[in-house]
Amino acid sequence: KNKLLFLSNVRYFIDKHREQHAKKVIHSIKVGTALVLVSLIYLLDPLFEQVGENAMWAIMTVVVVYDFYAGATLSKGLFRGIGTILGGGLGCLAAILADDFGKTGNTIVVGTSVFIFGGLATYCRMIPSIKKKYDYGFMIFILTFSLVAVSGLRADKISKLARERLTTIGMGYAVCIITNFLIFPMWAGQELHHLTSSRFNKLACCIEECMEAYFSVNQKEGQKNINISSCKSILHSKSSDESLANFARWEPWHGNFGFYYPWEKYLQIGELLRELAAIILSLQACVQSPLQPSTRLQRVIEEKCNNIGISLIHTMRELGESIEKMRSVQEKVVMLPGLQSIKLELSILSTSELRAIENVE
Amino acid sequence: KNKLLFLSNVRYFIDKHREQHAKKVIHSIKVGTALVLVSLIYLLDPLFEQVGENAMWAIMTVVVVYDFYAGATLSKGLFRGIGTILGGGLGCLAAILADDFGKTGNTIVVGTSVFIFGGLATYCRMIPSIKKKYDYGFMIFILTFSLVAVSGLRADKISKLARERLTTIGMGYAVCIITNFLIFPMWAGQELHHLTSSRFNKLACCIEECMEAYFSVNQKEGQKNINISSCKSILHSKSSDESLANFARWEPWHGNFGFYYPWEKYLQIGELLRELAAIILSLQACVQSPLQPSTRLQRVIEEKCNNIGISLIHTMRELGESIEKMRSVQEKVVMLPGLQSIKLELSILSTSELRAIENVE
Repeated sequence: KNKLLFLSNVRYFIDKHREQHAKKVIHSIKVGTALVLVSLIYLLDPLFEQVGENAMWAIMTVVVVYDFYAGATLSKGLFRGIGTILGGGLGCLAAILADDFGKTGNTIVVGTSVFIFGGLATYCRMIPSIKKKYDYGFMIFILTFSLVAVSGLRADKISKLARERLTTIGMGYAVCIITNFLIFPMWAGQELHHLTSSRFNKLACCIEECMEAYFSVNQKEGQKNINISSCKSILHSKSSDESLANFARWEPWHGNFGFYYPWEKYLQIGELLRELAAIILSLQACVQSPLQPSTRLQRVIEEKCNNIGISLIHTMRELGESIEKMRSVQEKVVMLPGLQSIKLELSILSTSELRAIENVE
Repeated sequence: KNKLLFLSNVRYFIDKHREQHAKKVIHSIKVGTALVLVSLIYLLDPLFEQVGENAMWAIMTVVVVYDFYAGATLSKGLFRGIGTILGGGLGCLAAILADDFGKTGNTIVVGTSVFIFGGLATYCRMIPSIKKKYDYGFMIFILTFSLVAVSGLRADKISKLARERLTTIGMGYAVCIITNFLIFPMWAGQELHHLTSSRFNKLACCIEECMEAYFSVNQKEGQKNINISSCKSILHSKSSDESLANFARWEPWHGNFGFYYPWEKYLQIGELLRELAAIILSLQACVQSPLQPSTRLQRVIEEKCNNIGISLIHTMRELGESIEKMRSVQEKVVMLPGLQSIKLELSILSTSELRAIENVE
């Protein structure tokens, strides 16, 4: 039975790996397609005559904005647009303001404004809450502001340049959105959903392994190895979860995920799962410690521990499955009262029965 | 004494906060200065006549490459340079190759090469080991390759364009390096060093709080709160540690950090500290659990537990300080044998004395 479980685990792992690989290949093909589409602006004469050398900005937009997840592409593009418009607008103002001064005055005014706005925006980029969500937008703001303010002295027809540049950025963005959303879209929300629900099963497996390792000590010589890598990977999942949730907020209605879907709940569940993973990690350290209670004692608690372990594992898997399938859990399945009563039994055991056993010894 | 400790902790926190703030302000000023310096290429006529509109690339380089840490700026700039040269070279080849075909053939060849190279590089960017270190370089490669291959059809003097563009990127990079390394450089390596050594003290404080909370239960009514936020922040430090170590590898000799400084050791220590943090986190859960042994039992183990706790805390602080000050620890200070013997005493206690106590009760 264990061998079958192992084989099914290996198969699951291979399938998962192949799926990941397939997703990466699809993403690469999508990026290639987007690049070819945006290159057509350069390559086809009628299009090129419209925009000229500014077509460069369309290619740049595709390369920089295109992301694996649909939500990330959408939000990055929006931030790029907003950063460009704000930076461009303020840059224009600075250039016009500087134009009233003489040649040297001009240079001083432009230099000062670049220093002040560049410094301020850089400071904003380092504030944690802004860094998490709007870092890219601020970077584009600094870039556009500097470029526009500085070249304002040279380019006479700045409004025409700005219009053309925005148009080409828009074209690049459109290509990004169309290829990203129409060809096998990868939803950050879906990924977060699967990751969260699959972690319940992973932790349940860890608990199972801990229990087996603890109670198999008598039967076999060596202890079973406990696979703690999945526990550890869950412990380190905080930042990736947060960025997935950030992207998911930008994604439109898809599958079962409507608008205003409560993504922050996933972060809360993730936090709880990480705490559980920390507890399991130290449980595993206890199981593998050289200090162990007597075999006699182990045998006494074995049944109760197995009971509580199996209920816990069952509950975890049930919770994971209900999240995966988006249905509410039936109360009787979760068996919280059952868990509570076994816990009480174990605690009574530890004070009274244990004493009796030790006395007999 | 406790109040004094609390006050010194608060003061340390405020100092730390002020220091962080000062660092951010300094970084903002550095970015502002770099932007002004690079703007001069545009603003001063003799310089502008040399490079023309390509001066744009210098500004772009500064905005994109400039990073908080010296090592990050250095490596990003290098990757940008390498990516540009490789992408530009291959792009040139593709453009020249495509030139032999007719007008339509040209478009097809360029489109195909953009699709293939863009897709391949995108796939490489998703391989975890490459993503961690070279993501930025690959992005620049895709960008430059597409731009050069596509515009090869239009720009007749592509070699001149490439030379000018590389020169301006080099200028921008030089400005970045000069301002970043000469004005209060922020070393990623130093940050990693301080973070790692300060974590020993943080964990020692957590252990101290756990012990106090456990043994103060009898004296006061409510349990003391244990501050677990520092434990949790250590648990989530993996990815930031890794990126700091990545940057630190690029930093030249500075302070006590020579070439080939073993930065990966810090990652190993960090891994061990995270495991310890997980154990402390579940220790804290045990201390706050409603199930507790009898007061009598607590009093018996109190002395021994205090002994082991104090030795452990002392050892942790000693280790942290010795890392901070880069000196090797004297063996007698670490007191490992002492810890071992107290651990043995506690384990003997748990089997023999405890039974006796329970019998008396």
